[in-house]
Amino acid sequence: MSDEIYLDHAAATPLSDKVYAAMQPYFRDAFYNPSSPYAPAVQVRKEYETARVRLAARIGARPAEIIITAGATESINLALGDTGGHIVVSAIEHESVLAAAKKSECTLVPVSAEGRVSPGEVKKAIQPDTTLVSIALANGEIGTIQPLSDVAAVIREERARRLEDGNATPIYFHSDASQGAGLLDVHVARLGVDMLTLNAGKAYGPKQVGLLFVERSVRLNAQIVGGGQERGLRSGTENVAGTIGFATALELAERARKEESARLAGLRDYLENELVAAFPEAVVSGDHNHRLASHLHISFPGLDGERLVFLLENRGVLAATGSACAANKGTRSHVLETIGLAPEIADGSLRLSLGRLSSEENTKRAAKIIAEEVKNEYRRIG
Amino acid sequence: MSDEIYLDHAAATPLSDKVYAAMQPYFRDAFYNPSSPYAPAVQVRKEYETARVRLAARIGARPAEIIITAGATESINLALGDTGGHIVVSAIEHESVLAAAKKSECTLVPVSAEGRVSPGEVKKAIQPDTTLVSIALANGEIGTIQPLSDVAAVIREERARRLEDGNATPIYFHSDASQGAGLLDVHVARLGVDMLTLNAGKAYGPKQVGLLFVERSVRLNAQIVGGGQERGLRSGTENVAGTIGFATALELAERARKEESARLAGLRDYLENELVAAFPEAVVSGDHNHRLASHLHISFPGLDGERLVFLLENRGVLAATGSACAANKGTRSHVLETIGLAPEIADGSLRLSLGRLSSEENTKRAAKIIAEEVKNEYRRIG
Repeated sequence: MSDEIYLDHAAATPLSDKVYAAMQPYFRDAFYNPSSPYAPAVQVRKEYETARVRLAARIGARPAEIIITAGATESINLALGDTGGHIVVSAIEHESVLAAAKKSECTLVPVSAEGRVSPGEVKKAIQPDTTLVSIALANGEIGTIQPLSDVAAVIREERARRLEDGNATPIYFHSDASQGAGLLDVHVARLGVDMLTLNAGKAYGPKQVGLLFVERSVRLNAQIVGGGQERGLRSGTENVAGTIGFATALELAERARKEESARLAGLRDYLENELVAAFPEAVVSGDHNHRLASHLHISFPGLDGERLVFLLENRGVLAATGSACAANKGTRSHVLETIGLAPEIADGSLRLSLGRLSSEENTKRAAKIIAEEVKNEYRRIG
Repeated sequence: MSDEIYLDHAAATPLSDKVYAAMQPYFRDAFYNPSSPYAPAVQVRKEYETARVRLAARIGARPAEIIITAGATESINLALGDTGGHIVVSAIEHESVLAAAKKSECTLVPVSAEGRVSPGEVKKAIQPDTTLVSIALANGEIGTIQPLSDVAAVIREERARRLEDGNATPIYFHSDASQGAGLLDVHVARLGVDMLTLNAGKAYGPKQVGLLFVERSVRLNAQIVGGGQERGLRSGTENVAGTIGFATALELAERARKEESARLAGLRDYLENELVAAFPEAVVSGDHNHRLASHLHISFPGLDGERLVFLLENRGVLAATGSACAANKGTRSHVLETIGLAPEIADGSLRLSLGRLSSEENTKRAAKIIAEEVKNEYRRIG
């Protein structure tokens, strides 16, 4: 690990030491089923409930509004699973949102060349039978941050209109904020969402742990039924260690958020400036005014991004061409297609995502290595 | 923990030290997303795939037939979720099976007073549109083991009949074997099942990890969609640490299975004999010829089982009245109702489940403490 420069924090983050320490007692000693009746199990339940309170506090929700899941994909499937109506999503949502939306009638809202959703486009896409709008807080590939509170206003207007029209169909606003925690404000009231997905594994917390915030007035159907845990919305023995780890991770991330965002933006801007200076033909995607501090999506026209990833790996720089799930399938990114990036540009893309493993020293080193490898590649292809 | 006598292994098992050691590297150092393209991530994927091979080998399946889930409840919901037809389940299935079955048209098959399912009753319940039969390998409350291979024979006959009748409706056999791993043979071909649920958290493995074996000819619809992981049947970043832990736990459990079953049966029989000798009016439920070696379900007519659990806890004995999820709701067990146990007997029940934390010494001590407390209670109520 020591010599490696990890620039793929958007795909996975290392577990924080403090989070690991907080979870450890629940792996072995406090192994009891939180539904068991005796004191050590009751104590485990109490600590689990406290973690839910801590999570709720971090996003401005009530504890009963938090559903713990096995990750963002499950949260998203629960939120979008069974709305009984038409769904509106942006065309650059994560695959899990697109796949879940496509189980219902759905409309994909286009985005600008910078990857921004326009509230006006969302408004146009809403039908009288639309029950859900789902827009990610920030795109995992190009880092563009969406104007959620403006979309929320559109939804409030639609609610007022329905009230006037006597249309009793509810309409909810969900956001997948997996890429936002620790970098952006994820307070549900300030975002204006009725449902919010968060992923512990993207925020230096345990993997396979997510949450879905479900505002108390939202009527949702369970996807996984059984013992009736998690308000009846998600059965299965409660994830004690995972929830405590998640709460700890979110607290740590929130506490350091402003400082860490500024630090990462500084490193990212350095990386961007160095590479753009060296390669004026490079294309940086995403919205420069509304972009995750961690993200740099840069394309080198004519180059092969996958080849570049392997060359960089040989030099100790771990980077991605796109999001891990999409890149693995060897298909072209739907995000880059949607923002209209020409194939010969899109194919030469790197997604560099910074995070806690990024330092001034290793970011400078990465900039140098990437520049060298890109230069070699351009030389090679002539 | 040292003085505690844990008699609730059916609710939760402590994580094995060896399992914990096997998982540890994947919590922090090897934190990479298994879908990422660079070598350390590819190595993580390789180790994940190896764990799937190991799991498959343990149950006699092909690796591609294993779907890793977040636990038995999710596995069960996936198996029963969307069959498009009528479902047959036993009336004493775990709540998650009953709840999932009730989403479809379903028939509950009665059981004997010992809690055994009769293959003849299953046969009677099967309709031309039945697509799934789900019977647990062993009941978590009273420990009765079901004649799965006889039920499998009924299903094979039904398939032959359908072939003759030109009825193209498929019929599958699923079993929830959560309570069986480490005590019973869980080889899928010998059991005769098309789908099998296992739970790592009940077998000294990590919590929130389960699997669903899905025989390759079974057509199943995904419940959680997205990145297309787990054969497209269960999207979400793969659970690397959990799967490796599960494989290790199942290997350890299988290796020690015969010896451990014999050991536990010996301790359980001692406990049973002591208590029945002291209280001839006590009622032991379950099938004495087909019962999990770990389980003793014993009822003291006229006593209050919940009170008894608290009294025992004061003496350091951790036991349950029934399964953790049901007991927690204060409702009477549907299992005991189904086997026809009178309420005044059922209400005085203890479920004592032995396991790796049980020793000859602490089982003897437990027998003595339970006998004393039951005697006191009978004295108190006159």
